[in-house]
Amino acid sequence: MKIALDAMGGDHAPGEIVRGALDAATLLGVEVALVGGKHFLEVELARYSSPPDAITIVDAPQVVVMEESPINALRQKPKSSIMVGLDLVKAGKAAAFVTAGNTGATMAAALMVLGRIEGVERPALGSVLATPAGPTLLLDVGANADCKPSFFPEFARLGKAYMERVFGIADTRIALLSNGEEYVKGNHLVREAHELLKQAPINFLGNIESKDIPRGVAHVVISDGFTGNIVIKLLEGVSETFMDILNQALSLQFPAATSPLHNLWQEVERRLDYAEYGGAPLLGVNGVVVIAHGRSNAKAVKNAIRVAKQEVEKDMLEALRGARI
Amino acid sequence: MKIALDAMGGDHAPGEIVRGALDAATLLGVEVALVGGKHFLEVELARYSSPPDAITIVDAPQVVVMEESPINALRQKPKSSIMVGLDLVKAGKAAAFVTAGNTGATMAAALMVLGRIEGVERPALGSVLATPAGPTLLLDVGANADCKPSFFPEFARLGKAYMERVFGIADTRIALLSNGEEYVKGNHLVREAHELLKQAPINFLGNIESKDIPRGVAHVVISDGFTGNIVIKLLEGVSETFMDILNQALSLQFPAATSPLHNLWQEVERRLDYAEYGGAPLLGVNGVVVIAHGRSNAKAVKNAIRVAKQEVEKDMLEALRGARI
Repeated sequence: MKIALDAMGGDHAPGEIVRGALDAATLLGVEVALVGGKHFLEVELARYSSPPDAITIVDAPQVVVMEESPINALRQKPKSSIMVGLDLVKAGKAAAFVTAGNTGATMAAALMVLGRIEGVERPALGSVLATPAGPTLLLDVGANADCKPSFFPEFARLGKAYMERVFGIADTRIALLSNGEEYVKGNHLVREAHELLKQAPINFLGNIESKDIPRGVAHVVISDGFTGNIVIKLLEGVSETFMDILNQALSLQFPAATSPLHNLWQEVERRLDYAEYGGAPLLGVNGVVVIAHGRSNAKAVKNAIRVAKQEVEKDMLEALRGARI
Repeated sequence: MKIALDAMGGDHAPGEIVRGALDAATLLGVEVALVGGKHFLEVELARYSSPPDAITIVDAPQVVVMEESPINALRQKPKSSIMVGLDLVKAGKAAAFVTAGNTGATMAAALMVLGRIEGVERPALGSVLATPAGPTLLLDVGANADCKPSFFPEFARLGKAYMERVFGIADTRIALLSNGEEYVKGNHLVREAHELLKQAPINFLGNIESKDIPRGVAHVVISDGFTGNIVIKLLEGVSETFMDILNQALSLQFPAATSPLHNLWQEVERRLDYAEYGGAPLLGVNGVVVIAHGRSNAKAVKNAIRVAKQEVEKDMLEALRGARI
């Protein structure tokens, strides 16, 4: 299986991206096509004594600088790494596209190059959260800042098909994110969406509050893209603040570091680290596209590739197409 | 100073509420009027060997059961604890009202009994978060699930006046919660609000992402009440999940508990505990009203009383009235 990887996207491109690709090739047994400036990537690969044969370079000489209109920028730069990577997927030369680049640009480019799955009005960006009760898919987390109520049942069906197919969940519990559990709670959008979700052929739990997301009470949590984005970024920010607090408390109580403490710290960090979650699947476009965090390090890149590989192996697209009939 | 306390509101009423009142009377030097069923409260007070003279009971024999319309429920029950407590403030017999009851009902009752500060269109519920950089006021966190862009500059002015007067902040930094820092980010509501905030006579930092809230980059963070509510409840939920993770990691790495570990746990818990934050001020109504968490224990009740006391001492209302001119 070959994964097309945007080697130019993200805060730590290309160094960490390339390192993540090498780790993925070694540990996950996938081929990776590094898409980006050829010379640039050759120099980067030369840092490693023997890069595996599974790593190839596909030249994408144009660079997109993010402006107000990503669509125009992408149209004028068909040889940018995002466009070339998606072209590989469209042409069947890669099974999936992974990027740590701009979400809006990736969404726009994916719609241009791959199009929508038939019957899907709005693709949504999902985020799989690790909870004590198992994985929870939150969507939309950023593809649609403004939503209509009619988008929500569509998000629910995409999310249900995804969790069933990729995670093997049998009876997907779906909940609506609101500011209270009672059905009268919510803003206008959420109250109308609640009515539509109640009528949809899904296992609808009703509203849940944000505090219940980390507990894993639902397999799929539906939200508009603005609110969902606030949620995942807050989870990230709070995790970092927690680690700071824990660090300070540790150094206060245990001035001399010991090995079990180091293990403690690592254990907590591992469970809070967004890099463990992997990448965010873009659901509803006609191809497997995974968006990694802009700040992705090599581990996060490798994990995003793992998510893409899993989605291809499970034939996620076929499940999502079926969810629309 | 006498504080009217809703002894019937909250999940742990009246036991924890009464205990919080006793602690507040002892530790904060305030008088507390316990408002609720007289017989009920006499029984509760009888548990203590010598309740201080600073504690009095004001009878409120009616009980409001929360229905779809709190306004109707409150109109039909003028002798409920919320209404009687607010009447005490209106009549000048109490300096402030504190409740752990339903936010919507308290907001509705406060508007009925106390009314708005002149010129305020929409009162907002604030939440003071403890950050490493000092207190951050997030508002609205639940009074207005649906907002118009014009509400946001008003929230900003109320928040600025509050932070200047109550916390002595000199040049209040105000930010707008959005899904990206760039001014083009946001849903329609936030993009329009951004334009209005830019023109307002405030120190406007622009948009911030939710991940920056716990870092304390702004003194005041403005949001619609739906999104703000999602934020504070997620902070709460994540704190609890974090303590669970820490507990599990601790017992894994240190099967035999030791005293420094206990101190570590307490130190972290103290810094994460919502009860430390105190209560949420309802800003824009014509009186000092503080809403404590529904799950408030005695400590949270005491802290909410502390917040109310501070607001009265600093003459917060005068500052908020001035902010409207």
